[in-house]
Amino acid sequence: MDYYKESLRLHEENKGKVTVQSKVAVENKDDLSIAYTPGVAQPCVEIAKNKEDVYRYTAKGNLVAVVSDGSAVLGLGNIGAHASMPVMEGKCVLFKTFADVDAFPICVDTQDTEEIIKTVANIAPVFGGINLEDISAPRCFEIERRLNEMLDIPVFHDDQHGTAIVAAAAVLNALKITGKDIEKVKAVICGAGAAGTAVTKMFLSLGMKNIIVCDIDGVIYRGRELKDDNLKELADITNPENITGTVKDAVVGADIFLGVSAPNLLTKEDIAKMNEKSVVMPMANPTPEIMPDEAKEGGAYIIGTGRSDYPNQINNVLAFPGIFRGALDARAKSITEEMKVAAAKAIASLVSDEELCPEYIIPKPFDERVAKVVAQAVKDAAK
Amino acid sequence: MDYYKESLRLHEENKGKVTVQSKVAVENKDDLSIAYTPGVAQPCVEIAKNKEDVYRYTAKGNLVAVVSDGSAVLGLGNIGAHASMPVMEGKCVLFKTFADVDAFPICVDTQDTEEIIKTVANIAPVFGGINLEDISAPRCFEIERRLNEMLDIPVFHDDQHGTAIVAAAAVLNALKITGKDIEKVKAVICGAGAAGTAVTKMFLSLGMKNIIVCDIDGVIYRGRELKDDNLKELADITNPENITGTVKDAVVGADIFLGVSAPNLLTKEDIAKMNEKSVVMPMANPTPEIMPDEAKEGGAYIIGTGRSDYPNQINNVLAFPGIFRGALDARAKSITEEMKVAAAKAIASLVSDEELCPEYIIPKPFDERVAKVVAQAVKDAAK
Repeated sequence: MDYYKESLRLHEENKGKVTVQSKVAVENKDDLSIAYTPGVAQPCVEIAKNKEDVYRYTAKGNLVAVVSDGSAVLGLGNIGAHASMPVMEGKCVLFKTFADVDAFPICVDTQDTEEIIKTVANIAPVFGGINLEDISAPRCFEIERRLNEMLDIPVFHDDQHGTAIVAAAAVLNALKITGKDIEKVKAVICGAGAAGTAVTKMFLSLGMKNIIVCDIDGVIYRGRELKDDNLKELADITNPENITGTVKDAVVGADIFLGVSAPNLLTKEDIAKMNEKSVVMPMANPTPEIMPDEAKEGGAYIIGTGRSDYPNQINNVLAFPGIFRGALDARAKSITEEMKVAAAKAIASLVSDEELCPEYIIPKPFDERVAKVVAQAVKDAAK
Repeated sequence: MDYYKESLRLHEENKGKVTVQSKVAVENKDDLSIAYTPGVAQPCVEIAKNKEDVYRYTAKGNLVAVVSDGSAVLGLGNIGAHASMPVMEGKCVLFKTFADVDAFPICVDTQDTEEIIKTVANIAPVFGGINLEDISAPRCFEIERRLNEMLDIPVFHDDQHGTAIVAAAAVLNALKITGKDIEKVKAVICGAGAAGTAVTKMFLSLGMKNIIVCDIDGVIYRGRELKDDNLKELADITNPENITGTVKDAVVGADIFLGVSAPNLLTKEDIAKMNEKSVVMPMANPTPEIMPDEAKEGGAYIIGTGRSDYPNQINNVLAFPGIFRGALDARAKSITEEMKVAAAKAIASLVSDEELCPEYIIPKPFDERVAKVVAQAVKDAAK
């Protein structure tokens, strides 16, 4: 099937993918007097008296804004607010389909950090949560941090944490197969943007000690000239032996390679230099850092990608619907590291010991148990 | 029925009134690849190449933001963003129910004019139109004007123009009954806020010459100390004889009284001093400037209010759904005076000469013909 052609047809035929519907019937004078004036004054008065009642009488508690400035969309880059709309609508569809969350696209016509923060903060009363999407690094870090400080609803940048949570679930199960100790493995993370940074922090949360992060200029180490605070922080918290070199140097003797960067960076010769029972997760989309077949030839033991046409697809849809479902149900004010770790472990737990094997370390996107189990784990961790 | 109690129940049971639904099914890998990655890249690319394609491939063309800062909600006043949410959701329900417009509540957590303008402009890529709601005067005038200048989608403050359009429809039919010439009647408009100002301008557009506007300090005239530009403009464009005095002075010898102000300002003795076949439209809600029964005792010939329990309800729902339907269908960049006049005439036209009588000058809110006829008239006028 030509997904691109079919996608154009689907979008044109349906005029996009989201619609706003009424949950109440307004068919006569009484309906109108209850759903609108004069009756509607009563819930307004209650909320004016007690702001928390907004969760009781309005849709806020199940509404999530999918916010993007269109600066880092899929593999397309900086295409702007209007062109990002199909992706954001798509995300809303997934929220609804997988976790019955009412998500609405908010594509903002500015790429100024302060303006994005103000705009999202200003419209926050309507929403129970904010999902930031496809906002380029390093702006995404400040936008998320500042909004989380300002707002009493969770703000979650999915490109960071969704990716990190699902990758962590996969790595937890991969290590189970290989029998390696997470505190002793060496991991190389290629890509130091939104996803790479969050994966690194998540792996540290899980107890990993030896992580080498690489960006386009090679290994990130203390002493290298680094252009933003995020990279400086990465230098501080990773690379305990402060090695230098390229990603090809870094993977020598590594147990795990995880890529969120660019196509075709590694060869089978590079993979062959990794430790035995290597875990190779080239997740660049649609073309990974090394194609699975080549990684296999190089000796990779477990392989995961972002693609649906190979085993072990690392797909964010395993995380974000359940995470927001759980956070909304718990009325959490933020999504903490504990909630993220709980989500990763919940996803990993769905692959039973009997099923677990190099070709099946992570549940499939359409496994109906996932969102429910993640939601429950997140809800429990929120308490 | 206790509308207030029933309204609380309805809102709590349904957790608000709007929901975001998916228009496409995502049940398997192919669905996902078409609605989301990788296929979704194609509509993104098309829009990036040609911005107008956002109407072709996304929900924008049928999405309207119902924007409020909660500063002037119903009869409740300045209750803020959160407490305004039930009203804005209600408005969205009416948009959907009456004209199949996908409307979404945007309650903004600021009452600063510049911040509201920026916030709405920033989120405009998602919407095909902006309905401003319950924003207090005089800020509402500048917000609407500036946004209309900045954006290439219609921006419409319903408290102004919706009210004006429906009131104009009623007055057109009332004058038809009384046989009076619109250019020769004397009209008194009580209230110089959002609604009063828009009604005045609409009546002028329809050819009325002698309009006296009153605010809380009495008749607005040239030479009076007036606190904002809006009131100064009203002084310039109304009151040709530059009379002074109170609203009670102004109604002496008037043919039309229209109130959008406060309860119980007039008595039957005041009405008795109006011209023969007087048209009395006390529209303050829920308690009008004079109760219909008392107006009748004073000799009012035709009476209209905002209430559903008396004849001739002047209800905005007769206007805004069809107006946006028409504007969206025409992909109009603004809602012009011509489009508003066309809407008023279309509403008035639905009362046939045979039906027209003092108790029936305006269609009922649930008259199914209204939104369609208004939409068509607005669409035609947009061309």
